[in-house]
Amino acid sequence: MSYQAPVKDMLFVLNELAGLPDVAALPGFEDAQPETVHAVLEESARFNREVIAPLNVIGDRDPSAWREGKVTTSPGFGNAFRQFGEGGWQGVPHPLEFGGQGLPKLVATACTEMLNAANLSFALCPLLTDGAIEALMTAGSDEQKARYVPKLISGEWTGTMNLTEPQAGSDLALVRTRAEPQGDGSFKLFGTKIFITYGEHDMAANIVHFVLARTPGAPEGVKGISLFVVPKFLVNADGSLGERNDVHCVSIEHKLGIKASPTAVLQYGDQGGAIGHLIGEEHHGLEYMFIMMNAARFAVGTQGVGVADRAYQKAAAYAKDRVQSRPVDGTARQAVAIIHHPDVRRMLLTMRALTEGARALSYYAAGLADRAHASPDEATRRHCLALYEFLVPIVKGWGTELSVEVASLGIQVHGGMGFIEETGAAQYYRDARILPIYEGTTAIQANDLVGRKTLRDGGAIAKTLLAQIAEVEVELAARAASGGDAATFEAMRKHLAAGREALANVVEFVVSQGEPDPNAVFAGSVSYLKLAGIVLGGWQMARALLVADAKRASDPAFFAAKIATAAFFASQVLSQAPGIEASIVETVGDDHWLTLPVDAF
Amino acid sequence: MSYQAPVKDMLFVLNELAGLPDVAALPGFEDAQPETVHAVLEESARFNREVIAPLNVIGDRDPSAWREGKVTTSPGFGNAFRQFGEGGWQGVPHPLEFGGQGLPKLVATACTEMLNAANLSFALCPLLTDGAIEALMTAGSDEQKARYVPKLISGEWTGTMNLTEPQAGSDLALVRTRAEPQGDGSFKLFGTKIFITYGEHDMAANIVHFVLARTPGAPEGVKGISLFVVPKFLVNADGSLGERNDVHCVSIEHKLGIKASPTAVLQYGDQGGAIGHLIGEEHHGLEYMFIMMNAARFAVGTQGVGVADRAYQKAAAYAKDRVQSRPVDGTARQAVAIIHHPDVRRMLLTMRALTEGARALSYYAAGLADRAHASPDEATRRHCLALYEFLVPIVKGWGTELSVEVASLGIQVHGGMGFIEETGAAQYYRDARILPIYEGTTAIQANDLVGRKTLRDGGAIAKTLLAQIAEVEVELAARAASGGDAATFEAMRKHLAAGREALANVVEFVVSQGEPDPNAVFAGSVSYLKLAGIVLGGWQMARALLVADAKRASDPAFFAAKIATAAFFASQVLSQAPGIEASIVETVGDDHWLTLPVDAF
Repeated sequence: MSYQAPVKDMLFVLNELAGLPDVAALPGFEDAQPETVHAVLEESARFNREVIAPLNVIGDRDPSAWREGKVTTSPGFGNAFRQFGEGGWQGVPHPLEFGGQGLPKLVATACTEMLNAANLSFALCPLLTDGAIEALMTAGSDEQKARYVPKLISGEWTGTMNLTEPQAGSDLALVRTRAEPQGDGSFKLFGTKIFITYGEHDMAANIVHFVLARTPGAPEGVKGISLFVVPKFLVNADGSLGERNDVHCVSIEHKLGIKASPTAVLQYGDQGGAIGHLIGEEHHGLEYMFIMMNAARFAVGTQGVGVADRAYQKAAAYAKDRVQSRPVDGTARQAVAIIHHPDVRRMLLTMRALTEGARALSYYAAGLADRAHASPDEATRRHCLALYEFLVPIVKGWGTELSVEVASLGIQVHGGMGFIEETGAAQYYRDARILPIYEGTTAIQANDLVGRKTLRDGGAIAKTLLAQIAEVEVELAARAASGGDAATFEAMRKHLAAGREALANVVEFVVSQGEPDPNAVFAGSVSYLKLAGIVLGGWQMARALLVADAKRASDPAFFAAKIATAAFFASQVLSQAPGIEASIVETVGDDHWLTLPVDAF
Repeated sequence: MSYQAPVKDMLFVLNELAGLPDVAALPGFEDAQPETVHAVLEESARFNREVIAPLNVIGDRDPSAWREGKVTTSPGFGNAFRQFGEGGWQGVPHPLEFGGQGLPKLVATACTEMLNAANLSFALCPLLTDGAIEALMTAGSDEQKARYVPKLISGEWTGTMNLTEPQAGSDLALVRTRAEPQGDGSFKLFGTKIFITYGEHDMAANIVHFVLARTPGAPEGVKGISLFVVPKFLVNADGSLGERNDVHCVSIEHKLGIKASPTAVLQYGDQGGAIGHLIGEEHHGLEYMFIMMNAARFAVGTQGVGVADRAYQKAAAYAKDRVQSRPVDGTARQAVAIIHHPDVRRMLLTMRALTEGARALSYYAAGLADRAHASPDEATRRHCLALYEFLVPIVKGWGTELSVEVASLGIQVHGGMGFIEETGAAQYYRDARILPIYEGTTAIQANDLVGRKTLRDGGAIAKTLLAQIAEVEVELAARAASGGDAATFEAMRKHLAAGREALANVVEFVVSQGEPDPNAVFAGSVSYLKLAGIVLGGWQMARALLVADAKRASDPAFFAAKIATAAFFASQVLSQAPGIEASIVETVGDDHWLTLPVDAF
């Protein structure tokens, strides 16, 4: 079974929840009209179904392979990447003047979800290239933009992010790679970078590495890091490829999942120094890298949604097909398809509710990014940017943690067959496991949520969102009072209100205790992130419920399913919120477990 | 790093929570005195550390391999199994008269946990053999016992359970394998069995298959199934091996994990019929198989505890070693070992609290099984058996589901290194994933908990346990009132009471709604199982807290760690209970998601 992109749900979320009509009214996004967007999504769905998705299993069974410094990617990947570039898919959100399509991030996010659902390993190459383009557009010189961006958008070249070193993972203060000025504006780089996704491959003519390194005499810590562009092949003034640069892939990793995606160890400068050029200003590298990272973090959240949906589709298909046991309510005397068993339904709806909630939240965030970028009003731009930046760690952290849970449930639905590799469900479980780790672990996202996104503004943005949730509760109460399936709306209102109150209490706890009791606050940071994901995802599902109710008659089957999924989210997912609150706010810094001596572990 | 069995915690649980002193006072268990048990556990720890644990990675990298009907096990496995048999480890809980050690199940459970922590794939062979021995001891004739049991205990032969067929997984009513009587008391079997653990291997001279099959004219469904013993090599009257029987391994599976354990497809009767003999009475096969299955289900719960502990040990060692980032409370200006970061602590304590809670609950259950077996008083035997049988699906379902969560956290603690196979953390994540599936999926355990264990007695046994929990709450309140760290005891009391009330409400819901609204009750069955695990595990941790407090001075470091772990369990795990209750009791059979048409998925 190939992957069928849920175009109908994507359009519903884009139009009804994430504000595509408003975004399409912003200057520069005039092309994003309903018919165009619909056509783009349908064509993306076709391309991913026919070209990309069939390579997913192939890549898992026949991974990228390293030999003498060269990496051969899985069969079919190179050809598919050529089609990807020629189809203009790399350029969806990038500027028209450099060959992109100039569409909103909102539309690009739906395309990104499809690509990742189709093939997580394949999708990583464009994902990193997107980050490279974004860094160049923000911090690159005009000459650098002209030199690199069109080739990155066309798919002739690809991009990478080089942060990690053996001793510097989450902690970039420990980066040691050196960049020595050559007096002609260029630098020579020396050092080892690890975990470089598509750091070497055979799918494009050149690879453009974006590398964190220290210049001589730079301050210690993150304030002494600069960003360099280091192409695999040097680029001549006319744009043609020159000499091979001194950056070499010395090995690739043997991984649990995403096996088709080569994870490279790159050695810089073993033969005299890898030639690179500074991007932007010296010592501002981390700032620029954060541009790439924020884009990449958001995209990784979308990867979570994509792989979760793929796992759901596979499990649902199996549950409709596999016949086993009679129904518990005695409505049949023969064994039935297992989708009729209540627990199988609970598992499938858990997968679906989490996926739809995370999709809605991530698209909602993308719509804010578009407003932050294109709104004519500066105050609106600033406000939308703050909201978007608050949501990024949640989209990334929650969207990826839940993808592991969903993929695990996908195996469980298959029973013993799920454990057999040939079935395919296990690949999602293996592939998804990297998502809560790379581009910043969930703990790093949670640190960001606590530190930069909550403590820095005293919880102001969080409270803006809480107030918006309270407004939806009022709508739900009004709808419940009007009769007709009132219990559904009242149940959602009750759980959403309890979730909002739990989140409000936690925000208060973070803001008030961040200074006096940082250990307690950071001990609860991942739980805070999870709570925020559940409540904000539940908010989007509540909004979906109200729209589905109002539009029910226009597409009864689709909206009945949306109502069912929203109701499930309320009673089965949102109901966890108060328990998470308790686990956070009851912790204090002198709790036994926070002060337990290291030897006790 | 090899595996270090937590002998001290095991002895604490055995002696202080699971009632080893009482069990050792029962007739037949006189040998289970403290010094003996301590010595057995220390020797088991040494054997598993030195001989079995080092083969775990080897088996994963060089799995069992099939060729022309024969299975070659991983390097070193055959030799280790010989030592296992010679050391008497297969015989720990089995009768002295057949060559066993006659020790209580309680002691055997600690040994089983060690073996599984050391090497899940290896441990499966003895696990299945234990089930075979138990079935023979219960339902085999004296001649069958004499023929098979001593060789199974000595490790000369091994045993298997043959239930599953391609169309009959969870639903054994669909079993089709035929057994035709030959007139001489023997039968010829014809059919295909799949997912047969150690169904073929090279570690023992003979393999004794226990096979579910139908005799001619047998009723449809589970009431027409009989149990047969079918040895790989026929056994002559003098016990020597005769001809090769007509059961052949046609392939083994390519699996996500436990790769060293061969999972066989067995073909019976392709060359004229596999010769077998009936065990016990015709048509009672499922009943006898349940004896094996109950033993195996309990043991699989122990597998969950074992692999969880192994994952914890590896993650804790890494967290002490890996230096990254400065502490959030500003107590150091340099990067520190990550175990000092609050979120890493939260992950490690989650792993540890779940593992210790599940260990305590499973050993507690084993102690009940010993009383059910050996108590001189029949009423006590019956009562303990009912309690044990109530706990089996919880030990299996909860203990295995949490092992997946713990193994996943183990990867997360390692960050990017966790995703690299060489690190080893990923193996636990892959291996553990089978545990909530085989020997009955979590849904099957939950059906058992709802149907046979709760509805059948109107919740009587559940209420007995709830009353025992309430007694511990009284002790906690008294301890809190006596001052000195009162907050810890009051927090545990509060969360335990809330958990007990949640569980009581769910039991009431199951009992009252099981008849009128079975779909709603079974929709919540897995959540009920999870809730029961959390509350009953929390109950054991509360008991541990009280003992640790009273004995604190005798071993300050050990008991301080136990108190910290118990406190963590209260605020971080037990606190989830009320949310789970809501997700169960608010579901009704006409909920949108229970009645959503199949096409909507």
